[in-house]
Amino acid sequence: MNHQDQLQFLLDFLRFPSVSTEPDHAPAVRACAEWLRDALAARGFAAELVPTAGHPIVVARTPARPGRPTVLVYGHYDVQPANIADGWTRPPFEPTIVDGVLFARGATDNKGQIAAHLLGAAALLSPTAADGPPVNLIFLIEGEEEIGSPNLRPFLERHRQELRCDAVVISDTGMLGPDLPTLTYGTRGIAALEVVAAGPAHDLHSGIFGGAIANPCAALADLLAALHHPDGRIAIPGFYDDVVPLAPWERAAWAQLPITDADLRQAAGVTAFWGEPDYTPVERIWGRPTAELNGLGGGFQGVGSKTVIPREAFAKLTFRLVPDQDPDRIGQLVKAFIESRVPPAIRFTVTLGHGGRPFVMDPSGRWGTVARRALEQTFAKPVALIREGGTIPILHDLREILAAEVLLLGLALPNANAHGPDENFPLANFAAGIRLHQAFLELAAAL
Amino acid sequence: MNHQDQLQFLLDFLRFPSVSTEPDHAPAVRACAEWLRDALAARGFAAELVPTAGHPIVVARTPARPGRPTVLVYGHYDVQPANIADGWTRPPFEPTIVDGVLFARGATDNKGQIAAHLLGAAALLSPTAADGPPVNLIFLIEGEEEIGSPNLRPFLERHRQELRCDAVVISDTGMLGPDLPTLTYGTRGIAALEVVAAGPAHDLHSGIFGGAIANPCAALADLLAALHHPDGRIAIPGFYDDVVPLAPWERAAWAQLPITDADLRQAAGVTAFWGEPDYTPVERIWGRPTAELNGLGGGFQGVGSKTVIPREAFAKLTFRLVPDQDPDRIGQLVKAFIESRVPPAIRFTVTLGHGGRPFVMDPSGRWGTVARRALEQTFAKPVALIREGGTIPILHDLREILAAEVLLLGLALPNANAHGPDENFPLANFAAGIRLHQAFLELAAAL
Repeated sequence: MNHQDQLQFLLDFLRFPSVSTEPDHAPAVRACAEWLRDALAARGFAAELVPTAGHPIVVARTPARPGRPTVLVYGHYDVQPANIADGWTRPPFEPTIVDGVLFARGATDNKGQIAAHLLGAAALLSPTAADGPPVNLIFLIEGEEEIGSPNLRPFLERHRQELRCDAVVISDTGMLGPDLPTLTYGTRGIAALEVVAAGPAHDLHSGIFGGAIANPCAALADLLAALHHPDGRIAIPGFYDDVVPLAPWERAAWAQLPITDADLRQAAGVTAFWGEPDYTPVERIWGRPTAELNGLGGGFQGVGSKTVIPREAFAKLTFRLVPDQDPDRIGQLVKAFIESRVPPAIRFTVTLGHGGRPFVMDPSGRWGTVARRALEQTFAKPVALIREGGTIPILHDLREILAAEVLLLGLALPNANAHGPDENFPLANFAAGIRLHQAFLELAAAL
Repeated sequence: MNHQDQLQFLLDFLRFPSVSTEPDHAPAVRACAEWLRDALAARGFAAELVPTAGHPIVVARTPARPGRPTVLVYGHYDVQPANIADGWTRPPFEPTIVDGVLFARGATDNKGQIAAHLLGAAALLSPTAADGPPVNLIFLIEGEEEIGSPNLRPFLERHRQELRCDAVVISDTGMLGPDLPTLTYGTRGIAALEVVAAGPAHDLHSGIFGGAIANPCAALADLLAALHHPDGRIAIPGFYDDVVPLAPWERAAWAQLPITDADLRQAAGVTAFWGEPDYTPVERIWGRPTAELNGLGGGFQGVGSKTVIPREAFAKLTFRLVPDQDPDRIGQLVKAFIESRVPPAIRFTVTLGHGGRPFVMDPSGRWGTVARRALEQTFAKPVALIREGGTIPILHDLREILAAEVLLLGLALPNANAHGPDENFPLANFAAGIRLHQAFLELAAAL
């Protein structure tokens, strides 16, 4: 398979608008899963679509040869929403290539990286080899990562035996920069919730009633303003109880990384940072929990003005968590905090959403060492050991249920705009990803 | 013209979706104006449509007879937005009548009341009377009241001579209840503005950046929470400087009115009040200024969750004002307050919107007495003297430019839901309005 065919494979993958968060995209999610299954089968894997209560899981494998190490590659074919109105300058589901950079929703998160793994493995899977590939390989590509993988854990529990493996490889994390090989040894968890503030039975004329009626938008603003202390620390009682402090070696190592505040500011498109005192920006993102407002709404949304006291307002919140915070416990703490602050004549309704546990592993263990060597070979550079601020909700489940080491070999660059407009992936990283996966499998075979 | 014809006239008037705040409704606003001009012409008035920079003004008049008092009736044919999604249980622009109550957007505010005036006057305008009607009558019906009448003041200044009159009659205020004749001697003013909080150049992944980047939604919530002290008083420096305290006679008179807190709670659809200490709910609404959040938005608005740090968030605010607060000065104070509270890494952009001055008149003067007698005759009850919490932005302009007394003979009931869903107007009040206007003109003729 030449470079052109490899690229064509990725372009076809990216054209599916497989947005798992939006119910009306379900047919596209399914079509993407079917296409992926067929693509894996066409490359010599035994591939199938396993139904779940939500979107199906694509599973593909080589014939198991006993005595050889087994590697499971995990990824997801679903993507975040993408609307032109969010600021896209290119069509999100019709990939375009500009100066060697591929633009599309999912280019980095996660289709580009999955495609690299798949094509790297396919290059190693010679149909003519009498004794099969040197490593037993399983692909597990799900369609619900962006909604918190609600059906993956039951699936892993049900198929624990068939999925038995020594290591799980995941490329859904980042590189510090182009040509900076990076092993991510930790990720943050997440707890999502929505709060609705309700007041009068219906929108009221703000002249006829204003001054004597509690305004749900204002009550919501008061609540949200109370989530943080003025210095950026989270004010919810008990929120930090289970946080494991950053180790001195981590803080020292991170301070040495070739990543500057200026790089980070540029990647974020900001002129200044914000956040907890006593932590560097990188420490705040990789090693500290957050309380983030993802969406806010209430009352009149149109052009001009409408003089109402709105009947309700909502906020969508997510909390990024670090070891050993538990998403369920944090959800309950936040709910209790909100319910302890209900002002007169207002009702707060809290709906707990998806959760995911934080994760850390030992980058100096047996498989950690294989991963580091594969990265070094591919990029010919020392490997950066980092954590990431994002969440891969199932890292904890994969390790717990499959009793395997979990390795994060990410290829996302800081300006990939994953989850934002103009998401992108350099073709050079795509090619490196294909080489990386080949190198990893070869080193694993030698274990 | 019999009752059925009078009702038909109002129903036809209500079918125009003459929403002045929404640019795409401009054709319906224009069609409504043309229909109204033709209806006035058909009833013997010299009627015309006067263009403005925005929606046209309908002007109609009797031939001026010197020596007779001149009354100008002011009203507006534009209406607030009305969407089924706001909670309407009936179509807003296809009027329905249930148990003698008419439901439609504009039923009370202001088409129903304008129709009552027009039909009352038409009954007095006998084409066969050799010397014409006993009072010179001018109708001035504009199409931009709901957006703050931006073009009315220039119009009044340009046509000051033709519009010269002794009294301006306006029915755009409320009655305390059915069969409770009410003269409104004051209204609140308004100052509108919108604030946008902007942070990163585009939406950011809340995992990859969260913890180190200021969140515009959170910054906006902090700002909005700071608008009020915890007890409900407004925290903007200088906001209360020009407020004329309520007179003891007003507070005593209002305390005697047949209006209970339970009535007010029921009309608002709330279980408890909110607001400034040391003032009754009625005093807060009629005699005290407010800072009200009419709309709020930012970040993800769809189903489920999207883990972003939004690039911006907005809030739409209106401030209700009392004598002698000046909308321009208040706008500047609020703007200065907002600009004094910009947190690091966030930009606040304030856009000042429409304004309207507060208003008070003497209910015991010459024309005030005519108004009170007409109300007494029509309803056969003592007249309640009240202020209202709403805004009629041009009261101040009408009095200043035309040098005439301004009389507010309102027919809106507390549960009219003006500006909300299921706006309504009892047919009994419509009939009373027709009688009231006849009585008023007869008493005015005898001055």
